[in-house]
Amino acid sequence: MKLLEEKIRLEGQILAGNVLKVGHFVNHQIDITLLREMARELGRLYADAHVTKVLTIEASGIALAAAVALEMGVPMVFAKKNATANVSGEVYTARVASFTHNRVYDVIVPCAYLSAEDRVLIVDDFLAQGNALCGLIDIVGMSGAAVVGCGIIIEKGFQGGGDALRKRGIRVESLALVDRMDAETGEISFR
Amino acid sequence: MKLLEEKIRLEGQILAGNVLKVGHFVNHQIDITLLREMARELGRLYADAHVTKVLTIEASGIALAAAVALEMGVPMVFAKKNATANVSGEVYTARVASFTHNRVYDVIVPCAYLSAEDRVLIVDDFLAQGNALCGLIDIVGMSGAAVVGCGIIIEKGFQGGGDALRKRGIRVESLALVDRMDAETGEISFR
Repeated sequence: MKLLEEKIRLEGQILAGNVLKVGHFVNHQIDITLLREMARELGRLYADAHVTKVLTIEASGIALAAAVALEMGVPMVFAKKNATANVSGEVYTARVASFTHNRVYDVIVPCAYLSAEDRVLIVDDFLAQGNALCGLIDIVGMSGAAVVGCGIIIEKGFQGGGDALRKRGIRVESLALVDRMDAETGEISFR
Repeated sequence: MKLLEEKIRLEGQILAGNVLKVGHFVNHQIDITLLREMARELGRLYADAHVTKVLTIEASGIALAAAVALEMGVPMVFAKKNATANVSGEVYTARVASFTHNRVYDVIVPCAYLSAEDRVLIVDDFLAQGNALCGLIDIVGMSGAAVVGCGIIIEKGFQGGGDALRKRGIRVESLALVDRMDAETGEISFR
């Protein structure tokens, strides 16, 4: 999506360690014109996919999920992250390793929120190694629902998570797919 | 808001200890028709308030904040919760005691996301004692911005937080204001 790529090029900050800072317009403070356009674009891409539910993970995927769900007119659900394995009630859980935060956590969705008839669009702000996304895909699998695909704001293509999912036959649509970025020169290139 | 009150009456679960469970349509799985109507209602209530920014706190306020920000055409920001006081960078922080979770945490907003010119609408899903909301109000005060008011989905009036804020002169609009609820009979009454 050109609008997003231009915004990343102009306002994103590339830091050492493959970090791309876009917190002031993508995921912490949210530019609402951009959010609306991103939701419309994902709605367009998945218009024929018969999506019945939008699923994301707290916290930074929620704004996009709400906007996409409003665009598509279907409910949204967010998975909770829990540092402890102390989960009660009827829930689906998947264990996820976070490289960014250097810890392991459980991703949790109450069973009541997913059914075998659901066709689920999974959305998130970032896709790097894809661990969180794999956890969400596992959870959808446990419920018997179908994953129609993933909708991502920024995929860091050089970290391989997106292509690994595509090799598994999962549709992944990233609104900006970064192929290379250089913290020293500030250069960034999109696929 | 009648639609919300009816939905709470029909589908909400009143549990012991003043707990009202509405997670399957308000804040964990989100009914998108309801979300749209709630955002429109808050947009209508604050139409003349010259809001420049919508502020909430992760995680369950974010979907409402995104919908309200889309409705009003202004950016949204969410505050992060941090169990540690180990905060770096230029941030505003306020310490908040959570009765629900029986712990103390820091509410954090980067300074760059609020300026003295901002007119801030604070939104959240629940208002009980009002601790989280007071933390957000303190943070807006630190930035020199003005709080135009609060927009809440469900206020538990009998826990006093909303009225304490109103006594301080802060405008609080709650889409459903629960005056009494009884876990044994399942009865609930709205102000």
